[in-house]
Amino acid sequence: MQRFVNDPDEVVEDTLKGFVKAHADIVRLSEENSRVIVAKDAPVDGKVGVITGGGSGHEPAFLGYTGQNLLDAVAVGELFSSPTAKSFLDAAKACNSGKGVVCLYGNYAGDNMNVKMAIKLAAKEGIEIATVVANDDVCSAAPDEREKRRGVAGEIFMWKCGGAKAAEGASLEEVRETAQKAIDSCRSVGVGLAPCTLPAVGHPNFSIEPDTMEVGIGHHGEPGVRVEPLKTAAEVGKEMANIVLDDHGLEEGAEVAVLISGLGATPLDELYILNDAISEEIAARGITIHKTYVGNYFTSLDMVGATLTVMALDDEMKRLLDVDVRCPARLL
Amino acid sequence: MQRFVNDPDEVVEDTLKGFVKAHADIVRLSEENSRVIVAKDAPVDGKVGVITGGGSGHEPAFLGYTGQNLLDAVAVGELFSSPTAKSFLDAAKACNSGKGVVCLYGNYAGDNMNVKMAIKLAAKEGIEIATVVANDDVCSAAPDEREKRRGVAGEIFMWKCGGAKAAEGASLEEVRETAQKAIDSCRSVGVGLAPCTLPAVGHPNFSIEPDTMEVGIGHHGEPGVRVEPLKTAAEVGKEMANIVLDDHGLEEGAEVAVLISGLGATPLDELYILNDAISEEIAARGITIHKTYVGNYFTSLDMVGATLTVMALDDEMKRLLDVDVRCPARLL
Repeated sequence: MQRFVNDPDEVVEDTLKGFVKAHADIVRLSEENSRVIVAKDAPVDGKVGVITGGGSGHEPAFLGYTGQNLLDAVAVGELFSSPTAKSFLDAAKACNSGKGVVCLYGNYAGDNMNVKMAIKLAAKEGIEIATVVANDDVCSAAPDEREKRRGVAGEIFMWKCGGAKAAEGASLEEVRETAQKAIDSCRSVGVGLAPCTLPAVGHPNFSIEPDTMEVGIGHHGEPGVRVEPLKTAAEVGKEMANIVLDDHGLEEGAEVAVLISGLGATPLDELYILNDAISEEIAARGITIHKTYVGNYFTSLDMVGATLTVMALDDEMKRLLDVDVRCPARLL
Repeated sequence: MQRFVNDPDEVVEDTLKGFVKAHADIVRLSEENSRVIVAKDAPVDGKVGVITGGGSGHEPAFLGYTGQNLLDAVAVGELFSSPTAKSFLDAAKACNSGKGVVCLYGNYAGDNMNVKMAIKLAAKEGIEIATVVANDDVCSAAPDEREKRRGVAGEIFMWKCGGAKAAEGASLEEVRETAQKAIDSCRSVGVGLAPCTLPAVGHPNFSIEPDTMEVGIGHHGEPGVRVEPLKTAAEVGKEMANIVLDDHGLEEGAEVAVLISGLGATPLDELYILNDAISEEIAARGITIHKTYVGNYFTSLDMVGATLTVMALDDEMKRLLDVDVRCPARLL
């Protein structure tokens, strides 16, 4: 295993140590909980707290999106495992200024369970936690069962819009509604070309045969809807766009934001090659692209592959998406 | 080969197509040369033009650093090959406002040759091109032969400081001096864990045996100074820091910027694990870290590995480094 690790069981611990050392100007480790990252200036007086949480191994998600006009605190789980209820609770406590906290997280069993528990625990301490559950992954359930779908890279748009709204001084309900609207406007799909390996396991926990690809794959290798022969990037990009747009049902004249994220080990040039086909397919439907994001925004360790997220925009979503942020995930 | 490509011989062409579609709000393709990326607002009246150029396969370098307060134009080469003299020339022409152009590029034979030729061609058209040649890669030549060293990720700091200086309205000579000072203040080292593959070749053009690492490896797989058994991240990070700092000869009390870049297929969490050891080693020498950048800033296709760049800072370098930029490489 050709990796920069120490003890494979301590990957998260070591990642967090290096993370807070790198970005001490933006974030800090909670003094109460070594699995909670907190924005340096949190809690902000009079502001709704915005938190998320999820398993590690998706860096820069989730912790890299902590910062100005974005997330105030992040609960950090072990690799591909939900953070504990206590970590979600401590994240909320770390950024609660009295106006309540919104937890914007992904639809996974462990996260659902632990967030629910955290809400109860927080209520006992007089902290109100509202939630939005991301379910943008089109292939993870049928259109009429959207509540069963997983949350993937659309979460970044949810955090951006929710975080920007909170920074404007909106109420808890307003922030929740905005984040809900943001994720409701997102559809995503993943295509996997090669699996990832948990360092402590040492071998992939699923397989993708050479010259094939898995369409609809999840962030943890959850099976997709089909295994196909690996096609050209133009064909793959078109297929990804069609899956997302067909589910989205956007009308001609719609405006969208596009996010193409590598899954960890796919070089950036290939993501741009995909984007050529994706943006052409979107344009062919008479849909306008407001902004395109291409890079490793939400990964899965060293998985080879990419995700596409398309978010439908109205004036408010566009305005919130365009708010400048300062966070470790995108530093220059 | 599990990749998102169309014709493997058209990777650069297809990357550029997807790149300009993604970032049309920041960049455009030159109308005169399909291998030149130009900042949307270039040329800026009264501003020195700032250009670079280099082989493709290092995305987001070089083209991703085109934008506000950064590069005005970039000459794009084929994979791991220098851009042509004409492309360097056309990049210069695209951003020349009459105050001259500075070309900030890396020390490779092809680039040196083509930039020299571009300077002559530009002179005939009345455009002055000044140059700074990056040579921050410590292991590529001995300390007393720094002019033989290759340029690697230190180029990003050179672009940032040079670009910010030019945006302030400095003269050609002032911009050149600033960029020269920036790269003179940088030292870098690379460690490779697994090789990369040119899509048109289909197999790696060099090898790194499992359970070993190549210390001092170049961005194109140029041999390092030694092959060692793969150590823990703590040991590798310490070794990288020592190589860079020993060559740097910084005194206690010095202030630095740190850039840890993945080489393409190394997950972000591992870069943070490396940073834990790197930042500790820097601190142990009584050196203060002003800012740390961790991510895929300068890659080599799908190579597994990382580079460390340490830049010594004075007040001016710090100020220029902190200037906000807007470019495709770091969009959120």
